[in-house]
Amino acid sequence: MIRAKVIGAGGYGGVGIVELLLGHPGVEIACLVSATDTGMPASKLYPHLTGFCDLPILAPGDPAAQVKVDVVFTSTPDAVGMKYAPEILASGAKLVDYSGDFRFNTPAAYAEYATRIGLDPKHASPDLLPEAVYGLAELHRSEINTSRRVVGNPGCFAVSCILGLSPALKHHLVDPFSVICDCKSGVSGAGKKPNAAFHYPARYENMNAYKLAGHQHVCEIERELSLQAGQEVRVTFTAQVVPVCRGIMSCLYGQLIKDVKAAEVVALYREFYKDSAFVRVFDRSAAIGTIHVRGTNFCNLVVDVDERTRKLRVISHIDNLMKGQAGSALQNMNLLFGLPETTGLMRVGMYP
Amino acid sequence: MIRAKVIGAGGYGGVGIVELLLGHPGVEIACLVSATDTGMPASKLYPHLTGFCDLPILAPGDPAAQVKVDVVFTSTPDAVGMKYAPEILASGAKLVDYSGDFRFNTPAAYAEYATRIGLDPKHASPDLLPEAVYGLAELHRSEINTSRRVVGNPGCFAVSCILGLSPALKHHLVDPFSVICDCKSGVSGAGKKPNAAFHYPARYENMNAYKLAGHQHVCEIERELSLQAGQEVRVTFTAQVVPVCRGIMSCLYGQLIKDVKAAEVVALYREFYKDSAFVRVFDRSAAIGTIHVRGTNFCNLVVDVDERTRKLRVISHIDNLMKGQAGSALQNMNLLFGLPETTGLMRVGMYP
Amino acid sequence: MIRAKVIGAGGYGGVGIVELLLGHPGVEIACLVSATDTGMPASKLYPHLTGFCDLPILAPGDPAAQVKVDVVFTSTPDAVGMKYAPEILASGAKLVDYSGDFRFNTPAAYAEYATRIGLDPKHASPDLLPEAVYGLAELHRSEINTSRRVVGNPGCFAVSCILGLSPALKHHLVDPFSVICDCKSGVSGAGKKPNAAFHYPARYENMNAYKLAGHQHVCEIERELSLQAGQEVRVTFTAQVVPVCRGIMSCLYGQLIKDVKAAEVVALYREFYKDSAFVRVFDRSAAIGTIHVRGTNFCNLVVDVDERTRKLRVISHIDNLMKGQAGSALQNMNLLFGLPETTGLMRVGMYP
Amino acid sequence: MIRAKVIGAGGYGGVGIVELLLGHPGVEIACLVSATDTGMPASKLYPHLTGFCDLPILAPGDPAAQVKVDVVFTSTPDAVGMKYAPEILASGAKLVDYSGDFRFNTPAAYAEYATRIGLDPKHASPDLLPEAVYGLAELHRSEINTSRRVVGNPGCFAVSCILGLSPALKHHLVDPFSVICDCKSGVSGAGKKPNAAFHYPARYENMNAYKLAGHQHVCEIERELSLQAGQEVRVTFTAQVVPVCRGIMSCLYGQLIKDVKAAEVVALYREFYKDSAFVRVFDRSAAIGTIHVRGTNFCNLVVDVDERTRKLRVISHIDNLMKGQAGSALQNMNLLFGLPETTGLMRVGMYP
Repeated sequence: MIRAKVIGAGGYGGVGIVELLLGHPGVEIACLVSATDTGMPASKLYPHLTGFCDLPILAPGDPAAQVKVDVVFTSTPDAVGMKYAPEILASGAKLVDYSGDFRFNTPAAYAEYATRIGLDPKHASPDLLPEAVYGLAELHRSEINTSRRVVGNPGCFAVSCILGLSPALKHHLVDPFSVICDCKSGVSGAGKKPNAAFHYPARYENMNAYKLAGHQHVCEIERELSLQAGQEVRVTFTAQVVPVCRGIMSCLYGQLIKDVKAAEVVALYREFYKDSAFVRVFDRSAAIGTIHVRGTNFCNLVVDVDERTRKLRVISHIDNLMKGQAGSALQNMNLLFGLPETTGLMRVGMYP
Repeated sequence: MIRAKVIGAGGYGGVGIVELLLGHPGVEIACLVSATDTGMPASKLYPHLTGFCDLPILAPGDPAAQVKVDVVFTSTPDAVGMKYAPEILASGAKLVDYSGDFRFNTPAAYAEYATRIGLDPKHASPDLLPEAVYGLAELHRSEINTSRRVVGNPGCFAVSCILGLSPALKHHLVDPFSVICDCKSGVSGAGKKPNAAFHYPARYENMNAYKLAGHQHVCEIERELSLQAGQEVRVTFTAQVVPVCRGIMSCLYGQLIKDVKAAEVVALYREFYKDSAFVRVFDRSAAIGTIHVRGTNFCNLVVDVDERTRKLRVISHIDNLMKGQAGSALQNMNLLFGLPETTGLMRVGMYP
Repeated sequence: MIRAKVIGAGGYGGVGIVELLLGHPGVEIACLVSATDTGMPASKLYPHLTGFCDLPILAPGDPAAQVKVDVVFTSTPDAVGMKYAPEILASGAKLVDYSGDFRFNTPAAYAEYATRIGLDPKHASPDLLPEAVYGLAELHRSEINTSRRVVGNPGCFAVSCILGLSPALKHHLVDPFSVICDCKSGVSGAGKKPNAAFHYPARYENMNAYKLAGHQHVCEIERELSLQAGQEVRVTFTAQVVPVCRGIMSCLYGQLIKDVKAAEVVALYREFYKDSAFVRVFDRSAAIGTIHVRGTNFCNLVVDVDERTRKLRVISHIDNLMKGQAGSALQNMNLLFGLPETTGLMRVGMYP
Repeated sequence: MIRAKVIGAGGYGGVGIVELLLGHPGVEIACLVSATDTGMPASKLYPHLTGFCDLPILAPGDPAAQVKVDVVFTSTPDAVGMKYAPEILASGAKLVDYSGDFRFNTPAAYAEYATRIGLDPKHASPDLLPEAVYGLAELHRSEINTSRRVVGNPGCFAVSCILGLSPALKHHLVDPFSVICDCKSGVSGAGKKPNAAFHYPARYENMNAYKLAGHQHVCEIERELSLQAGQEVRVTFTAQVVPVCRGIMSCLYGQLIKDVKAAEVVALYREFYKDSAFVRVFDRSAAIGTIHVRGTNFCNLVVDVDERTRKLRVISHIDNLMKGQAGSALQNMNLLFGLPETTGLMRVGMYP
């Protein structure tokens, strides 16, 4: 059994990985750590865990939290995982970090990211950056292997955009400076901490765009798409919130520079993802919405061409807490330990 | 492997049992039957099933629907299952019916039920009524056994009320004519067929009571509670709809006729359900809502006494599509085949 | 023009009265006061006010907030209005207070209320209690007149229960110890301040009961119903939250002690409210929900008898922020200044 | 008093104009007509109208529906208003039609529109097309005057896009073939008739794009923007539905071809709309969402430039049933009768 520790267990990213680990045949949860709610059983904080996980929430420094484990999930904000990382790796455990801390491989790349979002540009564990891998298995499957120790789990919006655009950029279908990512997220993407914008009465009948000045996921989207394209890609990115709990729907656009039909593009996408169990490619006749990926690790792509304007249009659907967070984290853990990528993740979802 | 057939596969009760059977280690879905959407793959009707269940929806008379199976779930309205029943049993299969058809054991009891709700009082298969069992395992576990052939799966409101009140009636805590069931359901309880009352704009910011003249679940509630009490019990029942999708919260009241404290009543309830894995009993300090049972087969009971007015008050929470429908159906199937009651049902749920 | 000041302008009760005053032909808003968000224009805090009310939010002690006004609305928590009251009245203004501060007429009655909900039992302005009037116009219309200075605006749940039960108690239809108030509120009833229970992801698909140990509105419900009955009335009260924004639906039950039919009770209710423009009485054939009173000052009552169990059942629907708060406050202001009760309040609402 | 008749009174567009007319100082509702629900009082169909509008719903051919009126609102689907139009005009009444029937001025333009959306390309009243005016007052104010008889009320998505892009096209800020309209609508935009896609359980936690093959509002968007630009404009348009009831948020993009800063563009927009009371222009620092225009006739525009990619980005917010439908209809009626454009429409909205 793989023994797992979850740091940041109190938040949605934490409870999400706990739910998944409880259903994984090869993992046992060793301990749960959080800076808040310490001492409380996880099942008091999250009553649906009653009888499934009644472990106490431990403070980071609690001796009981120092048990030997094989993998640590840091479901923590930026600049936290990077502080824990050296100690975690020294103990022999592998690390899957949810934040931007290990999504970049050089101090300079990290500094650019951190600067854009107003954080200290200095990374606390710069020595570890070169060995970190960007945890989007569909693009980096072979690099996320048993010899790897550190994974930077991708951002939720980034997952939806990168999966939705990579085949087009790789095949040079679109002008790399024409790309627009119009991204709608459910409210759970903002986490568990109450705030005025996500108070029920302020939100139930509201939609709005936010962070127009720049969103933290743009760096990784542009980096990954540029890697696929072999040239610089810049995207216009608009983050929006709508009153669903789980779900991201990203409408992705690019000016076509090749004379392709929709059916050809659909075929290219299917070929690109033929080994990726969690990506499903549909043409525009499919009646797909975010509810069809809710609670699952799937990314459903509707691939289309607007002939009148020669635009590529891809609608990318994920569950932001699954493929956009805990699901990808478990997928990465599976790869780190040489397990089939889909172990514990091939769930059908629930409808309605 | 138990081979299962689902009749009424197109509705919420049908897709619910399909989801559960896909995760059950000992069942294989043999075929799906519905009067509508025939010919369509289940995964076109319900895209989240893509790759999990791509079987076609067959018309009832389709030759391919006549394969030999071990169990049939009839997720159909009143007066449908009773027509299929003789043929199903003759084929050697067991039957779990979702409607009121097999919740009563005599033609007279059925006639009273049918009359109350405006149906033909004549049962189509009266010979089968004596061998049917009311499928609420918590009260009839020993009767739902391998020698049984027909189960009448209980109504969703009924499950919440009967589980919430049985210990009190059995222990003669309350006046049997004082019982009030104030029951709130999510919208999925009304099924999949669109109608004006459940059109999103009419519903999203609305709550209302309905069927004040009489609800079809009252008969079975009074029958089961009377059985527990050993005397006639009559309930005042108010069905309400609120804008959640899944969930029933029933507030249950009775005039106390014994001098008991809340803690004693909690203890009585825990004792009553000590062998029932899916019933959790809490005192009033617990912060429990319907979201904590969503997607699961649990019934969470908050047991309380209002000392100022000497009223018993129980808040009963279930997922109407799980413990209130498909979950109970699978629990019954497990018992019919001698499997552990919880097989394929011990799921943690998802939050948020 | 009546000049009005709103203290607590930043909350839902504050913005609610601002919206109403903007549409009132005889009132001008003189200033807005709040302990938070001071300095900000009201239309920055509430962008829908842009161009309608761009007044700044003033701190309570701001000199600009000391202008002479005719009426003050204190949309503030318990124990705040009572501190401002002497100064307000001394300035010649009348006071409509939203809290429990002026709902009781003796220090002892206030102390009982305050004690029940964990507040200091000592009232800060006990001399003013005898002259305060309970601001439910339908029962105290003649007392809320131009010679009155202080109104204690009623609690939202209380409005729904008292309007729904007063005719029955006055006519001695029900056992005064049998009354049950099963009350469902929308989330706006909890106010504007974000908290974990009303964070969108925690709330959108959840319903729950709360404060089972005792709710602050019970005192005024029992006091008012006892006044109607001419004898002590005790109620069992269950507060619940469901995911709507605006709306209270209270299901009210009592054991009938008179041999009356539903139609007679409906007639009694219509007679009781014949001079009350904001109360509409329906029989159980009406398809009424909370959405039909949203944004209005109406209380819609569905009046019914359960013949099988001899229970009175009344379903009471209000908008908790209107008839349950700002609407009643304006209705009271109208009466205090000798205006027609309905001035500025006879609005049709919006659907859907 | 202007006497008004509403055809299609049973739908959301019909009840919307009824609500507005009830609050208009210069209009009296003469009669309500619908093909369904005939004979029923409007207040039975829409209980919130009780006491405000209890007129019966009349069949189109009912003699009582033939009374003389000054204005007719046809809140009807495509190809209905064009049939009624000659008779309405012959009676001396003016016509405001909600459909595409009178949004185009030539049979050929109509035929192109009708063909695109699968309707008969032949217009039933082609003689009237030249005198029809497109009812977007902000662009055609002077043409919607007392000598005009027929107004084609604009489509809801079209209003949001045209208002959001007209200043940019007029000032040649963007490449006219680069424009992308990513449009999210609330569910009420689909009307009152229940269907599977808008059944509450299918919708509450879902978002999806639809009509990727082409939406009926694209024709009028391109026509109006081309008029502003003085050259052909083509847009890529993506219609989406999210689970709000009222509201459209359109994110509008174009490749900048002029060297302008965000502040200059904001200034251009403010100048463009300086005489338009219902358009408010904000820069990207504003925290604006659709809830801030709910129930009102306002269009809130957030105007922005993405400097990194040189894209214009405008976020346009309207209430689809107000500025997107009944609100614009009343605004047009005001202009047709020489009243101030804002009469009966300058409403503050409601929050939350």
